[in-house]
Amino acid sequence: MKDEDTIKNTGLRGVKVADTKISFIDGEKGVLIYRGYRIEDLVKYSTFEETAYLLLKGNIPSPSELSTFKDKLASYSRLPGFVADSMKLWPKETGPMQALTAAMSLYGFLDKDADSNILEAYEDKAAGLIAALPVAMAAWDRIRRGLEPIPYSKDLSLAENILFMLNGEKPDPETARALDICLILHADHTFNASTFACREVASTQAGIYPGILAGMAALSGPLHGGANEKAVAMLESLKDEDDIESWIKNQLAEKKKIYGMGHAVYKTYDPRAAVLKDILKKLGEKSNSSGWYELCESVEKAAINIFTAAGKDEIKPNIDFYSGAVYHLMGFPHDLFTPLFAVSRISGWSAHIIEERFGLAQTKPSLYRPAAEYVGNYCGLTGCEYKQTTNDVK
Amino acid sequence: MKDEDTIKNTGLRGVKVADTKISFIDGEKGVLIYRGYRIEDLVKYSTFEETAYLLLKGNIPSPSELSTFKDKLASYSRLPGFVADSMKLWPKETGPMQALTAAMSLYGFLDKDADSNILEAYEDKAAGLIAALPVAMAAWDRIRRGLEPIPYSKDLSLAENILFMLNGEKPDPETARALDICLILHADHTFNASTFACREVASTQAGIYPGILAGMAALSGPLHGGANEKAVAMLESLKDEDDIESWIKNQLAEKKKIYGMGHAVYKTYDPRAAVLKDILKKLGEKSNSSGWYELCESVEKAAINIFTAAGKDEIKPNIDFYSGAVYHLMGFPHDLFTPLFAVSRISGWSAHIIEERFGLAQTKPSLYRPAAEYVGNYCGLTGCEYKQTTNDVK
Repeated sequence: MKDEDTIKNTGLRGVKVADTKISFIDGEKGVLIYRGYRIEDLVKYSTFEETAYLLLKGNIPSPSELSTFKDKLASYSRLPGFVADSMKLWPKETGPMQALTAAMSLYGFLDKDADSNILEAYEDKAAGLIAALPVAMAAWDRIRRGLEPIPYSKDLSLAENILFMLNGEKPDPETARALDICLILHADHTFNASTFACREVASTQAGIYPGILAGMAALSGPLHGGANEKAVAMLESLKDEDDIESWIKNQLAEKKKIYGMGHAVYKTYDPRAAVLKDILKKLGEKSNSSGWYELCESVEKAAINIFTAAGKDEIKPNIDFYSGAVYHLMGFPHDLFTPLFAVSRISGWSAHIIEERFGLAQTKPSLYRPAAEYVGNYCGLTGCEYKQTTNDVK
Repeated sequence: MKDEDTIKNTGLRGVKVADTKISFIDGEKGVLIYRGYRIEDLVKYSTFEETAYLLLKGNIPSPSELSTFKDKLASYSRLPGFVADSMKLWPKETGPMQALTAAMSLYGFLDKDADSNILEAYEDKAAGLIAALPVAMAAWDRIRRGLEPIPYSKDLSLAENILFMLNGEKPDPETARALDICLILHADHTFNASTFACREVASTQAGIYPGILAGMAALSGPLHGGANEKAVAMLESLKDEDDIESWIKNQLAEKKKIYGMGHAVYKTYDPRAAVLKDILKKLGEKSNSSGWYELCESVEKAAINIFTAAGKDEIKPNIDFYSGAVYHLMGFPHDLFTPLFAVSRISGWSAHIIEERFGLAQTKPSLYRPAAEYVGNYCGLTGCEYKQTTNDVK
């Protein structure tokens, strides 16, 4: 039980701010559950589309529910003309996360009933945006390369569409399924910083579009969505390193970070990292990737050895360590890693926005409006004496 | 002192989440202080530019500091070509708050050193965005009316610029000063929902642009930025009402809201409303507004009588009651009220983003990542049994 004095200035770490029915983490045991289902089962039996439906609605879809859901995805999958035309005017060097955020804000123009308080309207918009986001991501990636966007294909899965819309080729089933699993694993993670931002905005009764926008803004932060890009950069720099253990020891001695290691919530192996490690191994064998998996494994082993020797045996690889490595092997440009995170997490964000907006897990939703302790300049309730310095006030 | 169980599901109301040196509210006494100065003194002696500087830097600027600050404002005041060209492609019926949010996300493309952790870089960007926002607001308002945007003029104050860029005419000094005071009064208000969203995003070390974007997303919510628009709509509907007291009683009997009355923090007259009421009276006398001030005053009196009789004598007009009324009398389209709020509040948002990002009020800034209580479907740590429903997984 925490009291107020222990809460202040801690980023609300460990403070239960609300009830939720969407996901659950047991950080000690390394378990992540979406709506009652373990992610290990979801990556085995489910697809991203099914998982997104599960997060939004609370149940595994029946075949007909899934089919209706896919139709809703498809209904937003055409890039609006004014978005495509606007994109063609944007500076080509614009980073894809910035461009995706801007595209999302333009999609907001299409929200004709933003003030609607009808649950079904929110659910339909959420489904639509889950397809709209990868379409916009792929469109910008092609436009910045001077290529025409490729339309979404209703006959492909969302994961297949991502690869198809980026590259113009239908991907092989193994790569598409590996990406599908990545999307499942990134789809939700309780009240992380971006999801909390979504819920905070939803509590003002702003519609789903502003909520998602706040989530994307938070995800763009280096402490949140950018970690897998940094982990891959680190791994790449270690390709020709003979003595990885010494390198890690030096980094730590210099108080530098080992990216992709340790987690605020997991005190053991991140269950998502375990799945991704397995995928990386399979993709590595298939793609003849000259030791990329082996390099990652060596870095993992060396880091765990060093942390364990230092009495920090809870520090193990997290999702960022292996998701970046997988995306790298799939050939994604590194600056698409954070947008890919958003493309998956939008399913969880939407579920949380809807739960917050409609009070689906708590009796009475309440606008987030915390207090603060004023520690600044204070001259009492009369205020400080104002010494006028300019002639601007007449 | 609150413990964790009393915090959950309350929107963190009254929970001190951080230290701040920026602003302070005494809700019992009806006092609002920015950096030690009472708003009553700021509206008397200061301008919006000075107040924005005060919020950002912590001191009233010297004449040379103010002059440098105005140069920084001016340095971002040219609408970038790709923003103007993009705007011309947008659907004309797009609401100005949506358009302003999109414009802000496009400005984000210009942030070349988003990862910079240099305080001065943040302060310069904040100053620039304080001018960029009204420029974008006015540009969209003109573009949607089929008119060319009017450039910002370095010789005018920010308040004068807003009126000039919208209407193409230099405003009279009294109207410009009234708007200037409105901007001062809306500039900060501790940890309200939008400011908290800004701080939350800043805690991920995302740059100032994503932080502002999250603030705008939260402000767009009807429970936050939209209240003054609703208050004016209510006032307008009462123009021909003979018996205002009966109308209010009926509204309350039907559990409907009286907009612009009561406040989460103030338990007495909102000090900002008191200043605005005075401004409304002066503007009303000047503009020959056929009883607009008198109408507002009648509604206020009737509402206070009814609430007091019901034992709720803490319910009094808040800023939204009179700010909408003032903007209406100044001739602003009602859908510009929330953008005008953003144009002012961006000064406070920026100050809070900088305080959060650089830990200027607390020893160690920490990523906001609260916890939640899982109350959903739970089949134990093995998870629920998954029944496969589709053939999508091969």
